[in-house]
This record gives sequence, structure tokens and C-alpha cells, in this order.
Amino acid sequence: MIPGFETIDDLRRLCERLPEFDRTAAAAVAARQATLTKPPGSLGRLEELAAWLAGWQRRHMPRLERVEVVVFAGNHGVTVHGVSPYPASVTAQMVANFAAGGAAINQLAAIADAELRVVPLHLDTPTADFIEAPAMDEPGFLAAVRIGADQIRPGTDLLCLGEMGIGNTTAAAAIAAALYGGDAGRWVGRGTGIDDDGLRRKQRAVKAALARHRAALGDPLQVARCLGGFELAALLGATLAARHARVPLLLDGFVCSAAVAPLAQLRAGALDHARLAHVSAEAAHRQLARALGLAPLLDLGMRLGEASGAALAVPLLRAAVACHAGMASFGEAGVSGQT
Amino acid sequence: MIPGFETIDDLRRLCERLPEFDRTAAAAVAARQATLTKPPGSLGRLEELAAWLAGWQRRHMPRLERVEVVVFAGNHGVTVHGVSPYPASVTAQMVANFAAGGAAINQLAAIADAELRVVPLHLDTPTADFIEAPAMDEPGFLAAVRIGADQIRPGTDLLCLGEMGIGNTTAAAAIAAALYGGDAGRWVGRGTGIDDDGLRRKQRAVKAALARHRAALGDPLQVARCLGGFELAALLGATLAARHARVPLLLDGFVCSAAVAPLAQLRAGALDHARLAHVSAEAAHRQLARALGLAPLLDLGMRLGEASGAALAVPLLRAAVACHAGMASFGEAGVSGQT
Repeated sequence: MIPGFETIDDLRRLCERLPEFDRTAAAAVAARQATLTKPPGSLGRLEELAAWLAGWQRRHMPRLERVEVVVFAGNHGVTVHGVSPYPASVTAQMVANFAAGGAAINQLAAIADAELRVVPLHLDTPTADFIEAPAMDEPGFLAAVRIGADQIRPGTDLLCLGEMGIGNTTAAAAIAAALYGGDAGRWVGRGTGIDDDGLRRKQRAVKAALARHRAALGDPLQVARCLGGFELAALLGATLAARHARVPLLLDGFVCSAAVAPLAQLRAGALDHARLAHVSAEAAHRQLARALGLAPLLDLGMRLGEASGAALAVPLLRAAVACHAGMASFGEAGVSGQT
Repeated sequence: MIPGFETIDDLRRLCERLPEFDRTAAAAVAARQATLTKPPGSLGRLEELAAWLAGWQRRHMPRLERVEVVVFAGNHGVTVHGVSPYPASVTAQMVANFAAGGAAINQLAAIADAELRVVPLHLDTPTADFIEAPAMDEPGFLAAVRIGADQIRPGTDLLCLGEMGIGNTTAAAAIAAALYGGDAGRWVGRGTGIDDDGLRRKQRAVKAALARHRAALGDPLQVARCLGGFELAALLGATLAARHARVPLLLDGFVCSAAVAPLAQLRAGALDHARLAHVSAEAAHRQLARALGLAPLLDLGMRLGEASGAALAVPLLRAAVACHAGMASFGEAGVSGQT
């Protein structure tokens, strides 16, 4: 859904030239909302969500017939430093669990009436330990971005993005620290549930990675390459390609937010086609969301990843679309307006 | 679903002797959750919701096959004081709109896969103007409580409660002020969108009602009778009967919360079978929820009533139940646990 890119500079140009929201479609939604049998604005964010969907879908009546959930999975060299309570082998085991239908996202995608696709990226060849070297070389990074971009299908009404990767909250914390500053402790959290010693190891790993790659951190795409991971690069690519295809999307938690943050650094408004589905219990997610200007739809103490929060928010959007399409106007229903 | 009550004292006894949560069923849910393929606790409130449903349904595997939405409607004598921007005739017009399928709750109940019932209470004979007299006499109050209680059906897995009634945020504010103190301004908000002059009229009406009924306000049930309304009394009755039938329920917004607050004043834990579906944009709802010890599931700036927030939260509970029932255990999926 996006043209070829051979270099990081090519990719940067694709990140800077972005299509915009269809204000006419959104205005049509707002005009219809004002006629529906409810006090003006009383459906709160559901009204805004209907207009947002319409503006990106370029339809006066938004729809959610084709909803997709895409989960990218990758492994991380930094796990050698004991940053997760789970072994790295769990990434592949969970990918098998997704295929077998036994994970949370399988149940949540079914509730959302969404198609689930899982995209594992080189699980047998983790990224480099980012304390020693850039997580990915440029061809590897660009290939992962491309794999993400290639997941965007024409005709998708809504895309939910998520990830799985033992060690990836460490990568996400490093990206957030590189882009927004502050020390490692500000951005490192317990991920899947690391203990106090592990938390200190995570903080040390992030601090060391920031020092190791200092020279590269002025460029958001180099931040993504040096500190990220294959699944984070794919999330960036999918989010960029969704924008070019005008597909609205729901971001999941902390790792997703960090993965797409370089896009927001490169271009104001680059995430206007995204909504943040939920704020995670991962400690730094709230401040990362604030830095990105993203207001979460849900706040339920979840911290699972794998697009679980994104899928859980889909029924809210279905509700927004159903109210917009199905409600009667004051005139149609014979209901008196304000006196 | 509850025995007869002839007097307010009879009703008070029913409010004080309440069945309790099945801790064995909830513990079985927690034990199973600990085996599922996710970090412990990572589904956040979804895990708690599964245990809560199980404990009230007295089933080790909670289910949501029969979900009902019940909306009570009533009219309010206080509307003569200009406390709403809409004429009182809108209550009956909206009941007709519910019957025709044109309101928000019709769309939201469909998304929730829930059966919707609307129960109008004496729309042609509003409550008395509570500045002049108790809103209801005792027989009228008790009959409305009974109408609410009679809505509880055996076999209901989850009940969503809501209301419609022009003027009823004024009644709700008066109840909250009577039960929790503070002046009228603390509890009065804009409801369906009253302007500044109307807001002052609302505040004056609540202040006058509190002064008029001061002698009765030590008894929470007299508060409900003197300051409430037919639909609020029905909400109280439905909530009480749901507790006696061990039916878990979702409360909607500000008016619902105020309507059931007398139960919480009469008996600690009286609302343990309820969850607050959302916090409304009505200004005082957040502090009322806090006073009730209810943590909302959603916070989306909605302020419509008619059970809209409650129905919107149903998919969250369906997600909780689906994850609990459908996820594989670590052992089944061959996923390694924490090292």
C-alpha cells in the first residue's frame, strides 16, 4: 500500500508526506449527530469516534464490516540480560497458541467480530543485543517495516494492531527514553511481571543502550532501528501504510505506542488516523500516551499486549457506528427539541 | 423475586438482610485464571469481572447467555421550575422512540446482544413538585419499588439498568445532597444541557427541597420517597430484587447511581452485586461514584442515560467471560511459565 523504499531516507520521505482526514465526511457526521434523538454531545466520545471513522474512511456513513487484528511477533537480543521473567522461547510458543486459538486475543478478536492475523518475524534470529550493537541493521529494519506495511489490505474498515515479544517492553522503554528524554527509570516498568532485581537489570540495559547509540538518537527512524525490534518496526510500517491507505486504526498498549512514536516525532499529526484503545498498567504508558497526545478509550488495568486492548475497544466503535446509523432524528421520532 | 412489603419498614428489612457473594465460585475463577496463558493479572479488570460474575451467578464458569436491559421512565413535578431545557412531554415521546427502535439504547442493546424492556411509570401523573410536598406518598413510592422489583426474571445472567425522565437529574442531585451533604451546587449539573440561568433554577429547587423535607432526610428510604421519582424508586426496587435473586447488574450513570444510593446507606455492601458501567459527564457523577465506592468501567464523556453506558459496557463483560472460558492453560498450550 506504500511505494518502495530502499533506504531510511526513502522511508523518511514517506513518513513526511501523509494524506489527511476528509473534513467533509466528518462534518456530515457531526451534522447528522445534531439531529439524532439525544441531547447534543450526550454520546460523548462515541460521537467523535463516528466522525473520526468517517473522515478516514471518506464515507458520510462510517462502517465496520471488515475489522482486522494484526499481531506482530519478534524476539530480542536484550533478553540475555534477564529483563523478562519468561524465557525468549515463549514468543514462539505464544505464536503457536495464537494459531491454536488458545490466547486471549483469539477470544477478544471473536468478541470484536474481527479477523485475526499473526505475523511472526524471524523468531529464530532475534535482534542484536542493543547494548552491543544496533538492534537491526538497515536492511533488516527496512524489511521489517515493509512486512508491516504489506499487512494493509484495501477495504479494511478498521485495523487493530498488537505485538508479542519477550523483552519488548525493554525495547519500548528505550525508544520512549530516546525520543522523550528522562532517565531509564522514568520509562522502564515491570512488563510481564519482572521482580525488583529484574527491574534494575532492565533499567541498566536501557541506560547502556542509550549511551551506546547516543550519536544516532537525533533521528527517530534510527531510534526505531537501533533500540526497537522486528515487531516494533513492523508496527511502524503498518501504521504508516494504514495512513497512506486511509485505514483508521486502534493502537494497543505501551509497546505499540512506543513503536509508532517515531512517526509522531517525524511529522505532527502522523497518528491522527489512530486512536489509543487503552492505557496499560505498564507504568510508563500513561506518560507516553500523554507525550503522543493520545487519549485512551479504555483504562482497565490490562497489560497483556497481543492487541488485547485494541480488540476490546472494537465494540465501542461498533456502538458509535450503530448509534450514528440507526438512531432516529427528532423529526422522524416526533420528539420535541429544546425549548 | 422478593417477598411482599406493605410498609417502608417492611422494605427496610428487605434492604438489610441480603444474600452474599459465593466466594467459592469466585475462588475457582481466580484459580483457573492463574493457569491461563498470560502473565498473572495481565487482563486487569477483566479478571475481576469474571470472578464477580461467577460469585453472583454461583457458577464456576460465568456465562452471559441472558442479558437484559431495563429502562424505567417517569415524570417529575419539579419540571414546573424550568430545570430542563426539554419539555416534560419528551419523556413519553422518548418511550415511543424506544418502542420504535430509534433511540441510542436500541442500537446499544443490539450491540450488547441484550433484550431491551422499557417500563414507563405513570407518565401522565408526574410526581409532586418536591418543593411543595414529598415527590411520592408512601403507597405510590412502594408501588414503584415493587414495579422495579418485579422486573427481575429468574435465569437472567446480567441486568443493565437505566432511566429516562425529564427533570430527573434534579431529583438525583437532591438525593445525593441529602445522603452525602454539601450544598446544592455540589451536586447539581447541567443534565441534558441546561444553561446558566437554568442551572441556578436547578440549584434553588434542590436547596428548597432539602429545606422542605429536612425532618425526613435521616432515613434513606424517606429520602428516596420525598426527593426521588417513580423511575428512581423502580431502579431501587430492581437493584434490591436483583440482589435477592443474585443477579449481577450494571448501573448506568448519575441518576441510576443516586437512585440506588439509599440501599448503600442502609447496608454496607448492598451494591456488591453491581458494577458501575461508566462515569457520566454529568458533573457530580464522579464524586457520587466515589461516595458509593464504585469504580466505573468506562469514562467516555457520555451523559445520555437510558442505560446507554450500561449497555456499552456489556461487551467488556462478554470479553471477560470469553477469555476465562476460552483461553488455554500454560500446560495445554505448551507455553513455558516464569523462570
